[in-house]
Amino acid sequence: MAPHKTPDATRRSDRSRRAILDSALALVGEVGYPRTTIEGIAARAGVGKQTIYRWWPSKAAVLMDAFLDLSARQNAGGDGAQDPGQPEAGPGIPDTGDLAADLKLVLRATVDELNDPATAAPTRALTAEGIIDPVLGAQFTEKLLDPQMELYVTRLRAAQEAGEVRADVDPRTALELLIAPLMHRWLLRTLPLTHAYADQIVDHTLRGLSPRS
Amino acid sequence: MAPHKTPDATRRSDRSRRAILDSALALVGEVGYPRTTIEGIAARAGVGKQTIYRWWPSKAAVLMDAFLDLSARQNAGGDGAQDPGQPEAGPGIPDTGDLAADLKLVLRATVDELNDPATAAPTRALTAEGIIDPVLGAQFTEKLLDPQMELYVTRLRAAQEAGEVRADVDPRTALELLIAPLMHRWLLRTLPLTHAYADQIVDHTLRGLSPRS
Repeated sequence: MAPHKTPDATRRSDRSRRAILDSALALVGEVGYPRTTIEGIAARAGVGKQTIYRWWPSKAAVLMDAFLDLSARQNAGGDGAQDPGQPEAGPGIPDTGDLAADLKLVLRATVDELNDPATAAPTRALTAEGIIDPVLGAQFTEKLLDPQMELYVTRLRAAQEAGEVRADVDPRTALELLIAPLMHRWLLRTLPLTHAYADQIVDHTLRGLSPRS
Repeated sequence: MAPHKTPDATRRSDRSRRAILDSALALVGEVGYPRTTIEGIAARAGVGKQTIYRWWPSKAAVLMDAFLDLSARQNAGGDGAQDPGQPEAGPGIPDTGDLAADLKLVLRATVDELNDPATAAPTRALTAEGIIDPVLGAQFTEKLLDPQMELYVTRLRAAQEAGEVRADVDPRTALELLIAPLMHRWLLRTLPLTHAYADQIVDHTLRGLSPRS
């Protein structure tokens, strides 16, 4: 808490910040990234435009924070994955010694998040815009995707040390074999995204990465 | 050729059709799907709006044909994959008896296509719009993606019969393990898309799908 603020002012700030982030997510899910504006977010949140500009330099910055916040709240909901905003504080991907079980837990939680209508529309909107706009896409990858991918790298390195994954496998490639099929099916809506599919991905992929051959 | 048309009229029609499809692709790559209009395509192609409406009912229909045409021309360029518009006429994914080699050939060709600037911008624009708009997304999947995925299913079934892939593997899932990591890396620009990456995907995935264990 800033020392010059009264507790009431801090509570008002927190409420405004919460309203702004929620409004930004709702709006981008409804009208898409290009038609989301600072003015629109302010109106929906019931705050002045200047309140938003005091805390964020741009629309992209508000939305990036809104997604970081959403991701942190989802992870706090108990899916076992870590808050990407605070990589050193959370548990990361669990390490029970059973890599397949740990990955299935996390991929099933990802399936649930992607199938959650509150998450789906804003995530689709931001992903689609990042696909077209390389600058936004790079921010999206750096702030949201890279920290999550780093959790997979950490867990896969531990599995290599435990002899569950071959030492010559690049963890950075291995994690893409795990998460890309989920994202592909979800983004392109080729078939329903289910826990059974998440389990299949883990089983097939780990069989390919394991030292047995 | 329609019997009431002279050879000259047919040549003019072919030229107009070619100009419309090329203009549609160029325009969607430059300004995105939402800002591409029939008027804009007509102006760029040097034809009247009515010429376009005579052949296509909507902007989406023109673009879908433009992508089918692009895909057919790329495949005719010798990447070994099949024209998805004519599944029974082409060679499909080659079957030399060496599944890994055949898949590497096709995935490397896909890498080259995705890295081709002429293809990249319009493909990104259409993919992004399909991610947001479920109706366009379904058309995109049905007309462009499904026919290509069917080629993988056919090749993977042959590999199952040849004993190269386990009989209990669902080819529909297996093909996603192959193509999704390529698309994921390309769409989200996480790392450069290379032939070496295509080869790694094939090697890791086939190891996971093979009968040896």
